[in-house]
Amino acid sequence: MNTEPTQINKNSSFGTDTTFGNNVLIGENCSIGNCCYIGHNTIIEDNVILGNNVMIAENCIVRSNVSIGNNSTIGANCILGEWLLDFYQDRLTPHNHKLSIGSDSIIRSGTKIYGDCTIGDNFQTGHNVTIREDSIIGSHVSIGTLSDIQGKCNIGNYVRLHSNVHIGQLSRIDDYVWIFPYVVLTNDPTPPSEQLCGVHIHSFAIIATGAIILPGIEIDEDSLVAACANVTKNVEQYQVVGGNPAKPLTDIRNIKNRFTGEDVYPWKYHFNRSMPWEECGYEEWYSSLDL
Amino acid sequence: MNTEPTQINKNSSFGTDTTFGNNVLIGENCSIGNCCYIGHNTIIEDNVILGNNVMIAENCIVRSNVSIGNNSTIGANCILGEWLLDFYQDRLTPHNHKLSIGSDSIIRSGTKIYGDCTIGDNFQTGHNVTIREDSIIGSHVSIGTLSDIQGKCNIGNYVRLHSNVHIGQLSRIDDYVWIFPYVVLTNDPTPPSEQLCGVHIHSFAIIATGAIILPGIEIDEDSLVAACANVTKNVEQYQVVGGNPAKPLTDIRNIKNRFTGEDVYPWKYHFNRSMPWEECGYEEWYSSLDL
Amino acid sequence: MNTEPTQINKNSSFGTDTTFGNNVLIGENCSIGNCCYIGHNTIIEDNVILGNNVMIAENCIVRSNVSIGNNSTIGANCILGEWLLDFYQDRLTPHNHKLSIGSDSIIRSGTKIYGDCTIGDNFQTGHNVTIREDSIIGSHVSIGTLSDIQGKCNIGNYVRLHSNVHIGQLSRIDDYVWIFPYVVLTNDPTPPSEQLCGVHIHSFAIIATGAIILPGIEIDEDSLVAACANVTKNVEQYQVVGGNPAKPLTDIRNIKNRFTGEDVYPWKYHFNRSMPWEECGYEEWYSSLDL
Repeated sequence: MNTEPTQINKNSSFGTDTTFGNNVLIGENCSIGNCCYIGHNTIIEDNVILGNNVMIAENCIVRSNVSIGNNSTIGANCILGEWLLDFYQDRLTPHNHKLSIGSDSIIRSGTKIYGDCTIGDNFQTGHNVTIREDSIIGSHVSIGTLSDIQGKCNIGNYVRLHSNVHIGQLSRIDDYVWIFPYVVLTNDPTPPSEQLCGVHIHSFAIIATGAIILPGIEIDEDSLVAACANVTKNVEQYQVVGGNPAKPLTDIRNIKNRFTGEDVYPWKYHFNRSMPWEECGYEEWYSSLDL
Repeated sequence: MNTEPTQINKNSSFGTDTTFGNNVLIGENCSIGNCCYIGHNTIIEDNVILGNNVMIAENCIVRSNVSIGNNSTIGANCILGEWLLDFYQDRLTPHNHKLSIGSDSIIRSGTKIYGDCTIGDNFQTGHNVTIREDSIIGSHVSIGTLSDIQGKCNIGNYVRLHSNVHIGQLSRIDDYVWIFPYVVLTNDPTPPSEQLCGVHIHSFAIIATGAIILPGIEIDEDSLVAACANVTKNVEQYQVVGGNPAKPLTDIRNIKNRFTGEDVYPWKYHFNRSMPWEECGYEEWYSSLDL
Repeated sequence: MNTEPTQINKNSSFGTDTTFGNNVLIGENCSIGNCCYIGHNTIIEDNVILGNNVMIAENCIVRSNVSIGNNSTIGANCILGEWLLDFYQDRLTPHNHKLSIGSDSIIRSGTKIYGDCTIGDNFQTGHNVTIREDSIIGSHVSIGTLSDIQGKCNIGNYVRLHSNVHIGQLSRIDDYVWIFPYVVLTNDPTPPSEQLCGVHIHSFAIIATGAIILPGIEIDEDSLVAACANVTKNVEQYQVVGGNPAKPLTDIRNIKNRFTGEDVYPWKYHFNRSMPWEECGYEEWYSSLDL
């Protein structure tokens, strides 16, 4: 560990107890907080703002205009503030794409996040996640390994995307939604066309493994799309749909725990881990809200 | 930016206005054109040829015998000319696998392309694409994020592969084909076996999201494979097939735009973006060809 | 090539004829064998043990407590001994997660393997594979490009996972199993829940492309799950199942080679490449075993 980076350009500064690996390069007008660690071979471009206690592992590239909140950790080989297409088309004109990532976040190795994205606190990714431009992501969101957020998406709070999920452009995902591996949200009703229609998934819905949701579909609250479903029609509240094409199978409230026979849905009354109602359960938490 | 690489070996040269990041290594017998930029920590091995105005971002590895045309941009963390299996089995015997990438190409970060591939001009990839050996790819082809071209494939011109497409060995894809996310072209009729049969997709066909095409299947021109289809039989011209197993659903010319009621297929008469008929439409363009 | 690394910390040593690229960093208490090569920019942390004739390509990170057997090759940009969650939650307390990889292995570029895993000899991965903690993997196993082993898995010997396979936590895969692209082994019967049930796949079973196996399912020996199957019930020995939901289609012994009409299943009697019976066939090999 070194007390100075290998190269630091004008108007950049760093706080107390911040240390650096070998071959660390820092551009202009950067502000790096206290107690940070910047790993070997990491490159920080211009106008980057890092809070306190931020750790960036080895071989990362933090491009211009990225800001990261306090207590966040970035795994090795990540690219934050990845180039948009306009850069490839015109490298000489300055661009001003900003990426903001909240505090207490964990970005695992190999993740790439574009500029023009805003992401809340307590964000987590798995490995090799890609998030393209113009995405707005709330707080307490987790996105699994190899998932691909195609951009122009709006994702709420406490959303859990498991591994290898593909979220097409213009998708809208409300709060407390669960999406499992190999789910695809599509957007082009007559491919190839220029008339994209995003999918809208409402709060507390669950999309199980391998389901494909066709363009413009709405999936209502507390519903369940079964594994392998090909969803061609809107899904109503409490509906369970499955098959190819997907058809209504039952009401979600009819599904029981296979071992105990107890109710398990709507899940918000039965699952608490890492949710805002973790301590007291959903009902008490909800009734305590000042709505 | 530096006006010399950190290390440059014998018989290698670079043109005017070419600049280098820190810790750039260049091997023997390389020829780098004018106005290039080679990013920090990038490694260029022997016998590499770069045209003019080529940009290679940070942390790339360009292995021996790679050539890249003018005006191309390579994102960070790419590996071009990736090792074939013979290298692992015998590191000491020199190998001579060549990779050629055309001009005006954009290779996005994390992409890995093997030796023994030939790729045309105006090539684009998303992130973390892998392309294995003995692949021949035409011009104006785009391959989306996480797609995996398994090698021994033949891909025509103006082909669009979206994200996370898996193209099995021995696949043949003609010109103007569209393939959407999570499509798999398989090749082994009785797995595991040694008798592989590639899929053949003819021009102007569209394979929608999540479709799986079984080994040896032919998909004819202007057809549409619906989302989630499991294609076990050949698909005829103008056919729309879907379901598991896939069955004929309709004639593609019966499908209308859901908003306007207008015809949308065959798509070549209705979609022009980035196609050679972009300026004048397909019919005028086609009639102007000197066939 | 250099005869010394750029930086080597106390109590670390390396054998004869071992060479180093530029900017190689080696931590404390490492033991590196004879005839090794460590590529440019590679970082080796503390307590790492490398056998003889180990090659580690460029830009790799080998974290603490990793051991790699003789004659193994690690492609560029790999991370071995990747951090577990406890590190993110408490960076200051020392952790002691070990990763052991056997001899004669080929780990292709971009692969990430966590600590707390034990992997046998003759291991191979494709590119960008992720293997999470508490996984035990036998010898002669191959895991294809982009596959994601979610951890707490038990994988036998001579198992072949093709590209883009997702193995959920608590999965158990016996010897000689084949799994093809885009297969998912799930584990949560009522998502989201805390009661995970892994899938168990018995020896010689084949899971074809795109099949999804629901939680807790058992798939018996010598069976075949067809492409695109959604497997909701246990599969018996010799059964072929397919469809959504999957139903029994036939006995695997009824399937013939489509060109020759010959028997092809059970596959162990007809396919020998890279199997322990490669020289003499399964029956002679099996009868020679001292059981």
